[in-house]
Amino acid sequence: MSEPFVDLGFARVDTDRTRRCGFPEVIFGAGKTPEEVVAIGKVLLEKNGVLLVTRANEEQHRALSASFPTAKWHARARSLTVELEPWPKSEGVVGVICAGTSDLPVADEAAVTLEIFGNKVDRITDVGVAGVHRLIAARDRLEACSVLIVAAGMEGALPSAVAGLVSKPVIAVPTSVGYGASFGGLAALLGMLNSCGSGVTVVNIDNGFGAAYAAAQITRLLPAKGGS
Amino acid sequence: MSEPFVDLGFARVDTDRTRRCGFPEVIFGAGKTPEEVVAIGKVLLEKNGVLLVTRANEEQHRALSASFPTAKWHARARSLTVELEPWPKSEGVVGVICAGTSDLPVADEAAVTLEIFGNKVDRITDVGVAGVHRLIAARDRLEACSVLIVAAGMEGALPSAVAGLVSKPVIAVPTSVGYGASFGGLAALLGMLNSCGSGVTVVNIDNGFGAAYAAAQITRLLPAKGGS
Amino acid sequence: MSEPFVDLGFARVDTDRTRRCGFPEVIFGAGKTPEEVVAIGKVLLEKNGVLLVTRANEEQHRALSASFPTAKWHARARSLTVELEPWPKSEGVVGVICAGTSDLPVADEAAVTLEIFGNKVDRITDVGVAGVHRLIAARDRLEACSVLIVAAGMEGALPSAVAGLVSKPVIAVPTSVGYGASFGGLAALLGMLNSCGSGVTVVNIDNGFGAAYAAAQITRLLPAKGGS
Amino acid sequence: MSEPFVDLGFARVDTDRTRRCGFPEVIFGAGKTPEEVVAIGKVLLEKNGVLLVTRANEEQHRALSASFPTAKWHARARSLTVELEPWPKSEGVVGVICAGTSDLPVADEAAVTLEIFGNKVDRITDVGVAGVHRLIAARDRLEACSVLIVAAGMEGALPSAVAGLVSKPVIAVPTSVGYGASFGGLAALLGMLNSCGSGVTVVNIDNGFGAAYAAAQITRLLPAKGGS
Amino acid sequence: MSEPFVDLGFARVDTDRTRRCGFPEVIFGAGKTPEEVVAIGKVLLEKNGVLLVTRANEEQHRALSASFPTAKWHARARSLTVELEPWPKSEGVVGVICAGTSDLPVADEAAVTLEIFGNKVDRITDVGVAGVHRLIAARDRLEACSVLIVAAGMEGALPSAVAGLVSKPVIAVPTSVGYGASFGGLAALLGMLNSCGSGVTVVNIDNGFGAAYAAAQITRLLPAKGGS
Amino acid sequence: MSEPFVDLGFARVDTDRTRRCGFPEVIFGAGKTPEEVVAIGKVLLEKNGVLLVTRANEEQHRALSASFPTAKWHARARSLTVELEPWPKSEGVVGVICAGTSDLPVADEAAVTLEIFGNKVDRITDVGVAGVHRLIAARDRLEACSVLIVAAGMEGALPSAVAGLVSKPVIAVPTSVGYGASFGGLAALLGMLNSCGSGVTVVNIDNGFGAAYAAAQITRLLPAKGGS
Amino acid sequence: MSEPFVDLGFARVDTDRTRRCGFPEVIFGAGKTPEEVVAIGKVLLEKNGVLLVTRANEEQHRALSASFPTAKWHARARSLTVELEPWPKSEGVVGVICAGTSDLPVADEAAVTLEIFGNKVDRITDVGVAGVHRLIAARDRLEACSVLIVAAGMEGALPSAVAGLVSKPVIAVPTSVGYGASFGGLAALLGMLNSCGSGVTVVNIDNGFGAAYAAAQITRLLPAKGGS
Amino acid sequence: MSEPFVDLGFARVDTDRTRRCGFPEVIFGAGKTPEEVVAIGKVLLEKNGVLLVTRANEEQHRALSASFPTAKWHARARSLTVELEPWPKSEGVVGVICAGTSDLPVADEAAVTLEIFGNKVDRITDVGVAGVHRLIAARDRLEACSVLIVAAGMEGALPSAVAGLVSKPVIAVPTSVGYGASFGGLAALLGMLNSCGSGVTVVNIDNGFGAAYAAAQITRLLPAKGGS
Repeated sequence: MSEPFVDLGFARVDTDRTRRCGFPEVIFGAGKTPEEVVAIGKVLLEKNGVLLVTRANEEQHRALSASFPTAKWHARARSLTVELEPWPKSEGVVGVICAGTSDLPVADEAAVTLEIFGNKVDRITDVGVAGVHRLIAARDRLEACSVLIVAAGMEGALPSAVAGLVSKPVIAVPTSVGYGASFGGLAALLGMLNSCGSGVTVVNIDNGFGAAYAAAQITRLLPAKGGS
Repeated sequence: MSEPFVDLGFARVDTDRTRRCGFPEVIFGAGKTPEEVVAIGKVLLEKNGVLLVTRANEEQHRALSASFPTAKWHARARSLTVELEPWPKSEGVVGVICAGTSDLPVADEAAVTLEIFGNKVDRITDVGVAGVHRLIAARDRLEACSVLIVAAGMEGALPSAVAGLVSKPVIAVPTSVGYGASFGGLAALLGMLNSCGSGVTVVNIDNGFGAAYAAAQITRLLPAKGGS
Repeated sequence: MSEPFVDLGFARVDTDRTRRCGFPEVIFGAGKTPEEVVAIGKVLLEKNGVLLVTRANEEQHRALSASFPTAKWHARARSLTVELEPWPKSEGVVGVICAGTSDLPVADEAAVTLEIFGNKVDRITDVGVAGVHRLIAARDRLEACSVLIVAAGMEGALPSAVAGLVSKPVIAVPTSVGYGASFGGLAALLGMLNSCGSGVTVVNIDNGFGAAYAAAQITRLLPAKGGS
Repeated sequence: MSEPFVDLGFARVDTDRTRRCGFPEVIFGAGKTPEEVVAIGKVLLEKNGVLLVTRANEEQHRALSASFPTAKWHARARSLTVELEPWPKSEGVVGVICAGTSDLPVADEAAVTLEIFGNKVDRITDVGVAGVHRLIAARDRLEACSVLIVAAGMEGALPSAVAGLVSKPVIAVPTSVGYGASFGGLAALLGMLNSCGSGVTVVNIDNGFGAAYAAAQITRLLPAKGGS
Repeated sequence: MSEPFVDLGFARVDTDRTRRCGFPEVIFGAGKTPEEVVAIGKVLLEKNGVLLVTRANEEQHRALSASFPTAKWHARARSLTVELEPWPKSEGVVGVICAGTSDLPVADEAAVTLEIFGNKVDRITDVGVAGVHRLIAARDRLEACSVLIVAAGMEGALPSAVAGLVSKPVIAVPTSVGYGASFGGLAALLGMLNSCGSGVTVVNIDNGFGAAYAAAQITRLLPAKGGS
Repeated sequence: MSEPFVDLGFARVDTDRTRRCGFPEVIFGAGKTPEEVVAIGKVLLEKNGVLLVTRANEEQHRALSASFPTAKWHARARSLTVELEPWPKSEGVVGVICAGTSDLPVADEAAVTLEIFGNKVDRITDVGVAGVHRLIAARDRLEACSVLIVAAGMEGALPSAVAGLVSKPVIAVPTSVGYGASFGGLAALLGMLNSCGSGVTVVNIDNGFGAAYAAAQITRLLPAKGGS
Repeated sequence: MSEPFVDLGFARVDTDRTRRCGFPEVIFGAGKTPEEVVAIGKVLLEKNGVLLVTRANEEQHRALSASFPTAKWHARARSLTVELEPWPKSEGVVGVICAGTSDLPVADEAAVTLEIFGNKVDRITDVGVAGVHRLIAARDRLEACSVLIVAAGMEGALPSAVAGLVSKPVIAVPTSVGYGASFGGLAALLGMLNSCGSGVTVVNIDNGFGAAYAAAQITRLLPAKGGS
Repeated sequence: MSEPFVDLGFARVDTDRTRRCGFPEVIFGAGKTPEEVVAIGKVLLEKNGVLLVTRANEEQHRALSASFPTAKWHARARSLTVELEPWPKSEGVVGVICAGTSDLPVADEAAVTLEIFGNKVDRITDVGVAGVHRLIAARDRLEACSVLIVAAGMEGALPSAVAGLVSKPVIAVPTSVGYGASFGGLAALLGMLNSCGSGVTVVNIDNGFGAAYAAAQITRLLPAKGGS
């Protein structure tokens, strides 16, 4: 076996991640120079065929496009993807639900992550608990998913309501949407951690990527026509 | 006009409160000796005909009963009431809703306060958002009230759901029910302050009394057969 | 009955809100594109005749004015209103009190909200507790209102003082005015939640809209002739 | 269809939960009288055949045993179970890992929950990151599970290390083990939310039950023969 | 000059404090054994003629009384004093004001400290801002003092109101009186730090001693005849 | 007696402040338009002869200079003063001490405030506890003052050290100097509130004005050649 | 090489720690049964010849004494030690300094840890910054140490003062001594982290053990003859 | 002996620091004008031959270069150094480890500080716990150092893992790398303070300088030949 990482001096790229963890390493773009993103990206693409850069910017996109013309910039998700060789498709559908339109960037980051890693996605937007009939109207679509990602800011109550309606795992993403005593998403985070809806699990504020990664680990468990 | 307060040395009892504020002063029992409660209570009863002691204890009840045999101990509400002369009845009904059975002490404190100050109360218990059909089933009773007090711990999502169903003022009471990251009711408090349900107002954690007092100020505004 | 919401893809506009909650849905402008504001606004105006956009900006105003030339920009309140058909007038007057001139943007947001939803408003500014005679001088105007909205930053003591002077419901709005240990309005928020003035209820920091909405729910309870 | 809840006056028992959510309602024992536990428990057992009471005490156990002699008290997990009719078995194994022996009560609560709901459990204890070779030695057992629950206090680093070793979903449970700046589990909670190990999801502090419930929702997705 | 401290092994008693700081060292009783209090107390009494032990207990009192029969136990103030030789009298009067009867222990600690260090004290109790006329009625007594100590819990608004009425230095003491979002006095502390009443200075929560010490440093500045 | 305030519509200027509180109202410049500053300033100058605007900016200075050519801009203190008629001189000297050069803006705000209100000031800079000999070298100058204002950021330890060296009142001002876990001055604030140096009182973070105002209230108590 | 840990079922004892880390594993006694302490203790003593149990209790001591009669109970340090074979002596001396007598339990835990691991200790108590001459008087003893552990509560200023006097590494231990806004040691912790004294490093609140362990790692670097 | 500090009016430069503390005073550049940096820098360079300015900027560099052409700007470390006369070399090597590439600015600040004060540095980057094999692969290089500085953001788990692998002192630096519930480095800070890896000490968030200074104090203890 070759060395399980590539030492670029400023980074030790973990090329063994897919074998160990099922998915390749993902680049956290924030604070990296375009050159660093390209250098790490090349190593990862050669190994895995797909690349995801989260918290990316357009300058990184331009630099990456020079080497990989199919590099794709997802503006609202602030994410970059390159797909040289599609990742194996997972069974099932992952629902990506959000409470309001302001939560869309986080939901988009989740959707981009899910799709680059071979998942089908069903999006439902603007179903906050202030008009719970909008949520109830979507119950069948929710139940038809294998996993549900639920993004919400302000008081973060949506995951509780979803968890009380369906029998599927709910991964809650607090968003920094709100003001005043929302404290940058803290209110939503605490609300979700204290959810009276059993089985809700939570990721960091605005962490659409993390929620999607966790959901993809679950759909990998599903067997039959192409599963893990 | 006589002096607008009675100076007992250890306390200046505000006997002018009813004239100014519409309701008499209420004794916060915590940390007061039985003797202090009795001394202040006598002044207030003479002036107002009714007395409410919140955060009270049974020792205070025994002391007060010696002078006022009809003093009543509300165990779960930890409240004491004496009613020498009933307070004028208000129009309307105040709904007192709570998310779970653990919120009952707070809901009881609200109900005791409402009743001593002449309000009709409708109680609905255990309608948390994890089973939102229980809440929807109660929609007509909710809408029939003039004001709604909604007590909830954990993520405190119930007031948002109630506010989205009805057209009446919702006063939210976070309770200290929960553990871990509920931080003694802080999660519920933040959730309620950030409610996406428009028009929700909030009182302090476990402050059933304050919610009831605010509700009673609203029903005082209602006219006709006996109003303010 | 038609569908109780309109699905615009990026939003599910709650057209049933007035029936359920007494007032139409309001657009939270922050983070929405001018196009999104216009699209949602059209649906809401068609249904309700009036429109309120809070946390709006001038670009949204320009876009909205193209379709609705009477759209009005309230600069200090950062709010947009369109009034095609005036909302039914409520009985009573809502007092909007603020502690200092720096609290005016929040008080303005409250006033704009109240007026678009048919309420009469009485404004009293700069009556902070450091010169309590200014407040006492206004006692009769305060008592003449049906509900009082009290905005204050720093230590947030004004609602307690107001609640001790009058018999009307007091809705407190902490503002982010202050520095250092005011922590963006947290000090005022905590002060108001712990108010020794009975019956004070509280909304989120800088949430003039929420306070006004709650006040309007109260004046809706007042019968067409006679008020409090 | 009959009413989807049973109204006991002090509680509205959600008898429809299994149909909607896949698992029956669970009693949160804290603050409930033995009589309340028995009354609710009877309704749930009649409907579901199994019962779980978390945050229970021995007095509740004694009361429940009078009606259900097979009621079982799990001391370290502070949980009660009654199993009149075993719940259907799930495929797969859920790993319950903990960092130190002080985390055992939380891990036990997870294990009791998993078992009453038909899951096989593999327990690995005392594999904290201060001696990471103990964890690496267990890698094959970890990878053989379908889902991993990882409980840790203090700095809560264990889930990150586990997530970096295996390809299975990791549900992290911060525990209140620690002192000083652990702030009752807050340090571990924040550590887990900020995990550099992709795909880690988090539940409330000491919430072994919640983690297990989420894990059981995942194993429910596995088909009857073959698992992952 | 002799050594400026006495080394008792477990403590280095600062016998030079009076020369440097104007007042002798004071014993913080919490966590000290009766023997330690007596040993340190003897050194300080020999040097200074007076002794103050704050956060003391009755066991310490009994031990100290064996050596100093005039040792005095101030129960509500949880303080011990011994006065072998009275401390020189200061000019002026220090006002000790408190918002409610629950703040009395803190006010008492301040008064005991002031008196052992030679200050005249004027006590005014139960003048909270919910009935501001009680405070205004006391304006002349307040203005007649040289310094004012104002203790309040809950929202801690009293110092602002006092500072707006008089021309004397106001030292604010937040107390831990309150519940819920008072967070053990934090709300009052923040309120006082953000006081809109100019010139309010603040000490630690429940620190009646510190406020009194600061006040005594101010009255020390007053010349022997005439005061303010 | 004329009305004790002037109603400018957007502000109720408290012209009675000097009579009640000993010093005129001061304008908090932040968030006020130049026009508002001028309008309020005129009222105050006519009444008091001096004017102080804190948290001011140069635009406000230019506007004020048009009416009052002697208006003075104190850049580092971000303060404006106008002195038409000098305020009566106080006895004594106020020491303004700061820990590092980064604390100078706060110390300057204190000095400007003291001087406009008739106080002599002695400035000592850069005497932090990391080189305590620099402080000890200044002991005589410190003791020669009547009151000491001590500004420090980071851990805020300087007031404790000063209080242990001298017999004069110490008013501590935490500054927002620092980074990371200084949390914008919170660490210094908490350090000062918990000072082991008896008699230290504290004002809000960066509140040089408040410290100076409190010091000026103390020097007003000093009698003889010109005192209060 | 044998297995690098011993699996006791409820614990995986890390018997390889001394080889890797230089010192044996230490038992954190809190929450362990006496039987667990004895079982783990036997494994560790057999391997290392010495044993340290921190946060221990007397019941654990009695159980351990049955097997190891020389087990020693250090009451104030709440620690247990067994020394079958003394640990190799380190060069140099570790100073253990504390601000007040209330910090002694933490200082004792540090001293017990240092001594069981072969370090000489010099103890200096009650040298808080309120009487800085007591500290300066000890400068030579401080400088004669190789490393200094400094424990302090309240504002935690002592490490800054020590670091400014000597050239040796300073390890600061915040203690939970204090009240009110000390928030259980948080004020001292923040103070130490923001120390203006360069080179101060910090451990958890009340973590005398951790400070001692770090100091022992430093003295291990000193060669066998000659010290620093 | 001459005066142990130089009074520049705006600063009292501590020229005695090297004698007392082993290293010269260092300039904290933030908030200082270029002129102030040059003035203080000249005094320190004359005394010590080397100069370090942390939190510096390029404008300060240009000003300093005018007087000292060899002044060096370390961009990523935001530090300035001048070396007129090299500082004596220390024995041993200090390892500077960081979890990810985003932590490099902090690691660089540490390395610059170490080198100007005569230390050899070994840098290892991108060895976070999500791929612990990268860290284990570096174990020999880690053990070959005398002290280890470990910088990490997010959950801050790396120091625990390092401390469990080697026998050398570990100084942990939390970085502000992360988002959401990392709260600007607070999560990493708490994680490190609660490290289960014995002997980890911690400095302020992003304080690479402080960690390096502490490490340099340790290598100063090593004798001239032979190291650890």
